Amino acid sequence: MAKRVKIYLDEKEMPKQWYNLAADLPKPPPPPLGPDGKPVTPEMLGAIFPMNLIEQDVSTQRWIDIPEGILEMLVRWRPSPLHRARALEKTLGTPARIYFKNESVSPAGSHKPNTAVAQAWYNKQAGVKKLTTETGAGQWGSALAFACSLLGLEAKVFMVRISFDQKPFRKMMMQTWGANCVASPSNETAAGRAVLEKDPDTPGSLGIAISEAVEEAVTDKSGQTKYSLGSVLNHVLLHQTIIGLETKKQLKIVNEKKVDTVIGCVGGGSNFAGLAFPFMLDKINGAEINIIPVEPASCPTLTRAPYHYDYGDNAGLTPLLAMHTLGHGFIPPPIHAGGLRYHGVSPLISHAVNLGLAKPMSLHQLECYEAAMLFARTEGIIPAPETSHAIAAAIREAKKAKEEGKEKVIVFNFSGHGLMDLVGYDNYIHGRLHDYALSEEELNKFTEDIKQFPTPPQL
Amino acid sequence: MAKRVKIYLDEKEMPKQWYNLAADLPKPPPPPLGPDGKPVTPEMLGAIFPMNLIEQDVSTQRWIDIPEGILEMLVRWRPSPLHRARALEKTLGTPARIYFKNESVSPAGSHKPNTAVAQAWYNKQAGVKKLTTETGAGQWGSALAFACSLLGLEAKVFMVRISFDQKPFRKMMMQTWGANCVASPSNETAAGRAVLEKDPDTPGSLGIAISEAVEEAVTDKSGQTKYSLGSVLNHVLLHQTIIGLETKKQLKIVNEKKVDTVIGCVGGGSNFAGLAFPFMLDKINGAEINIIPVEPASCPTLTRAPYHYDYGDNAGLTPLLAMHTLGHGFIPPPIHAGGLRYHGVSPLISHAVNLGLAKPMSLHQLECYEAAMLFARTEGIIPAPETSHAIAAAIREAKKAKEEGKEKVIVFNFSGHGLMDLVGYDNYIHGRLHDYALSEEELNKFTEDIKQFPTPPQL
Repeated sequence: MAKRVKIYLDEKEMPKQWYNLAADLPKPPPPPLGPDGKPVTPEMLGAIFPMNLIEQDVSTQRWIDIPEGILEMLVRWRPSPLHRARALEKTLGTPARIYFKNESVSPAGSHKPNTAVAQAWYNKQAGVKKLTTETGAGQWGSALAFACSLLGLEAKVFMVRISFDQKPFRKMMMQTWGANCVASPSNETAAGRAVLEKDPDTPGSLGIAISEAVEEAVTDKSGQTKYSLGSVLNHVLLHQTIIGLETKKQLKIVNEKKVDTVIGCVGGGSNFAGLAFPFMLDKINGAEINIIPVEPASCPTLTRAPYHYDYGDNAGLTPLLAMHTLGHGFIPPPIHAGGLRYHGVSPLISHAVNLGLAKPMSLHQLECYEAAMLFARTEGIIPAPETSHAIAAAIREAKKAKEEGKEKVIVFNFSGHGLMDLVGYDNYIHGRLHDYALSEEELNKFTEDIKQFPTPPQL
Repeated sequence: MAKRVKIYLDEKEMPKQWYNLAADLPKPPPPPLGPDGKPVTPEMLGAIFPMNLIEQDVSTQRWIDIPEGILEMLVRWRPSPLHRARALEKTLGTPARIYFKNESVSPAGSHKPNTAVAQAWYNKQAGVKKLTTETGAGQWGSALAFACSLLGLEAKVFMVRISFDQKPFRKMMMQTWGANCVASPSNETAAGRAVLEKDPDTPGSLGIAISEAVEEAVTDKSGQTKYSLGSVLNHVLLHQTIIGLETKKQLKIVNEKKVDTVIGCVGGGSNFAGLAFPFMLDKINGAEINIIPVEPASCPTLTRAPYHYDYGDNAGLTPLLAMHTLGHGFIPPPIHAGGLRYHGVSPLISHAVNLGLAKPMSLHQLECYEAAMLFARTEGIIPAPETSHAIAAAIREAKKAKEEGKEKVIVFNFSGHGLMDLVGYDNYIHGRLHDYALSEEELNKFTEDIKQFPTPPQL
């Protein structure tokens, strides 16, 4: 019989609880601050999010039950398969065993539905009728459209203009699921109009789109419209931990007792956290694991940006978050990995990196596309441009294992497929892409603005 | 725990043999004929296909072993999950239990890779270096590009122009896997040039594209280029039977002892045959099963076209096949289900229908899109336009079960996802699609031409 390349987990084996990293950190992360510089209260967040999700966001309980209604939606595509990348290993001639968790099997093609169905469900429980959100590459927007469709909620998606223009099919996907998708900045919000006035040709950014979505939620005084975020916040990362929890069960099935390296790409951080947090627990308990969040060199939050309080959005509608940030005014260059184009990164991941629990890496676009092409032609699946960052890092680590002659176990998150992102491949194949790294001058310029905010306690 | 909606099958349980319906038919189908009106010999087919596949095509052995090298590729995404469409059932209020076999989980997004990897493997065994083929919607072309990429073969794909123009992303997908994809009719073959001369603005057809691909194969006198077909022929259908064989095992896991209705959409017929043939065996052995091939009303081969000898392609380069055919000069209207736009249909399926083993149905485009939208918003997965025909038929049958108050078991093949076909949805949502059925006049006009060929023996 053919060697095993894919490990399924029966529906009955799907985890029934999420793992909350906050319960196990040696020090808690600094709290979000309100406009007055004081920690925000749950009540202040109530205009944006329903109370059940806010409670989850501040919880320090280690294991949190997944409600039955959410499990019923998750089993549509979960547990997702864990693959052994034997063909890639062979091509690299590495002694490393490379595994990837295939989140591309969800109906929206990425890990995003894991939290989308959870957030939509909690909102529905709280009596909410409509959710607003932003989306970069479109993965999050389509995931929320999908989730709202399953639960009969209205969905309004502000899509970063550069992606909206480059990816018309994402909009059609959202429409098929019944959502309303508009390009951001739009004329429909004060935040959008303010940006358009200054720069009518702006490519947009996640920060701007967040401002618009938040504004549309808070200005509905009926309280029936709330905002939903696809990454960054604690509860979002929590919902993604099912990825890592399943992975651990699957590795056990194939008798892998020790994992050496865990890799995920990072924009806001949710797919990385989803895979990595359950392994961080092992690391906190003494296991030697190299945990690598990978980001684009053009948007290097974890590797180069200061750790500081900053807004989560462009217009300053969110609380101040303690995180590695390039400044909320930062508009990243239009690389194709739209989902990684965010000025900040999850406070929880920022804190974990500061604590030494993860060691970030930044990569250039061309190396990532080269890795994605190799992956497509060996393993057969075309990766999302975001995912290619994790693949490129895994290949680096596999080559290192070869040099060292070590049988390492490398696990990365295959966060999504690239079938909606083929223009990037076309550009790469025809030599129309180039590398770009943020200069020191730009970094200093964009982070100038955040000096007005408090400095979080350094470790 | 949530009710079971998805049945996985472990890799170890994947079938190791294909099922060959030819072994169990009460009467054999009429043989393909050469230009002289006599049955073609395997040697005559040798210019187009390698001998190992030709042998498979004429085999009457019931079970055929799947070589290890093919199993190794199939396990990348197989066994595919079988889903219970509980949300759709609930919305319809039907007592029927609806199952769908999810072939969209393959890297190319459809059932096509099942035979693509098999054909590429057999060709490589036979010393072939390059494969040519045609593609309609692009599903087959990308599947063959994927398979050739895994095995290091060169691939050249002639894509029907209307689809080439409507679906630029399919071309990019093939390129990412290293294939060369051109619009058909092209200037690269005599067959293509002849069509362009008569009608430079032709939308193309599968028949024309087949002519071009066959011509490019047979004119390579080194013998290292062969042609590969994604449907119609016996060996192609054989490779797809793994779908139905897995489905039977999965139904056993959930204790379904009797299947009432089996449904698949039909262009050339491969996804339908893949699911249905193993159930036809039960029917031959006395089981009461309603087996339904579903085709578009705009291209009604099984429901309205005569059973006659005809060319498989437009230019007459293939042998004459005994099948239901609209005439090899038929150019179907540009409906979005490009994969179903073929003038003929598999000889084996034509024969099975004539024997009463299957009862075809034809459906209009708008009913299919309506069904696809309902499916997307209940089950969450966006179907390919081809697949929507099977869904619409399943919904009809589920409604009938409701009227009759019967707990029927309905199984259909979810042959592919629609993420590469979102323009069709956009057109449907914005009211730009309309129904179209072939008129009697057109039917008579296109079938006039085939009267010159022999009439196959009627049952």
